[in-house]
Amino acid sequence: MHHLLSEMQSCIETCQTCHITCLQMAATHCLEMGDAHAEPQHMRLMLDCAQICATAADFMARGSAHHTHICRECAEICRACAASCDALEGMEECAAICRRCAESCDAMANEMA
Amino acid sequence: MHHLLSEMQSCIETCQTCHITCLQMAATHCLEMGDAHAEPQHMRLMLDCAQICATAADFMARGSAHHTHICRECAEICRACAASCDALEGMEECAAICRRCAESCDAMANEMA
Amino acid sequence: MHHLLSEMQSCIETCQTCHITCLQMAATHCLEMGDAHAEPQHMRLMLDCAQICATAADFMARGSAHHTHICRECAEICRACAASCDALEGMEECAAICRRCAESCDAMANEMA
Amino acid sequence: MHHLLSEMQSCIETCQTCHITCLQMAATHCLEMGDAHAEPQHMRLMLDCAQICATAADFMARGSAHHTHICRECAEICRACAASCDALEGMEECAAICRRCAESCDAMANEMA
Repeated sequence: MHHLLSEMQSCIETCQTCHITCLQMAATHCLEMGDAHAEPQHMRLMLDCAQICATAADFMARGSAHHTHICRECAEICRACAASCDALEGMEECAAICRRCAESCDAMANEMA
Repeated sequence: MHHLLSEMQSCIETCQTCHITCLQMAATHCLEMGDAHAEPQHMRLMLDCAQICATAADFMARGSAHHTHICRECAEICRACAASCDALEGMEECAAICRRCAESCDAMANEMA
Repeated sequence: MHHLLSEMQSCIETCQTCHITCLQMAATHCLEMGDAHAEPQHMRLMLDCAQICATAADFMARGSAHHTHICRECAEICRACAASCDALEGMEECAAICRRCAESCDAMANEMA
Repeated sequence: MHHLLSEMQSCIETCQTCHITCLQMAATHCLEMGDAHAEPQHMRLMLDCAQICATAADFMARGSAHHTHICRECAEICRACAASCDALEGMEECAAICRRCAESCDAMANEMA
């Protein structure tokens, strides 16, 4: 149980880091680079990822029974966002945190299932 | 296509109404009534429902490819919230909008699948 | 009092409409048009406006004592967003709802002061 | 400039910690304790504080020109929330992070003015 709680706390923090990284990169680096970086599909994914990460963190913080489904969806969107970042220059750090967040959310979704 | 867009617009509005109703009822009626109304599991569901509705509305507004999964999860949480409201006095309107939102989100999730 | 409550309810709805309009236009029209529409300063304002409108609506829904300051800030950002939209093609509706939201939030901030 | 950016990064993290702490405490400890802990005015402040902290973090992450006003408002709400926590058992950690966040947001609001 304690192991579980500390794992959830760590997942919350990773989601928060992923949220702020995606939002920051989208609103600064991507829009400033323009072209492929500001392409609608990439920008939407960045904003989707930022929002589902914040939502997942909040569901876990509330101790919500529904957090497993949200975490599973968060993992899926994080992976899609990481793949979209891979194709673009200067997004390595963002892709890395998205992948780390996907792993952490997957673990939460499975352990609680 | 036009039919689809107008259905999505209507789903966005229903999600926004459900979001604000759940938040308003949780922070006013439920906390003021206390007892069963302020029981952790009910209050968490109300806040979960408020947040997933706002998230679903935003995903649809962005034209996000991932909105179907979010809508499906939103429908599920709305139904759980409606059931929780059914057991409590003065929550009829909140339960009704949650059910209406669940139906609307289900339709979006299925039509786009 | 009843007059006040109905005015607040109307302000909440206007904030929600402004939130979803700014988010939708930013993530679709602006990114699809590119160039000046996707310029960082304009896009940030659109996202700022979407977020402060949602925040203002939530503070009012909770019956929060702090909603007047949030409404005043919301009005200011809505006006800045409207001005930014004025300079761009196809943003007339967005500019109009931002101005309507600014007026509504100003009224809430002043009446409650 | 670099000093400023690292100070802003630190303020973003403090806001995120304050957001998740207030939300977590409100939805778990406060609702489970009931009575004064679940009193409407205290719970609303906890939710207000959680939301304005998330909003302030996002405005800073976007590099938004309007973040100073949001940070000033965030500091004010954090102080009110800390005072409300002071009167309640087991809220010392929450009060402490609220005060730390208020100081950090005040510094951001003043330095950028």
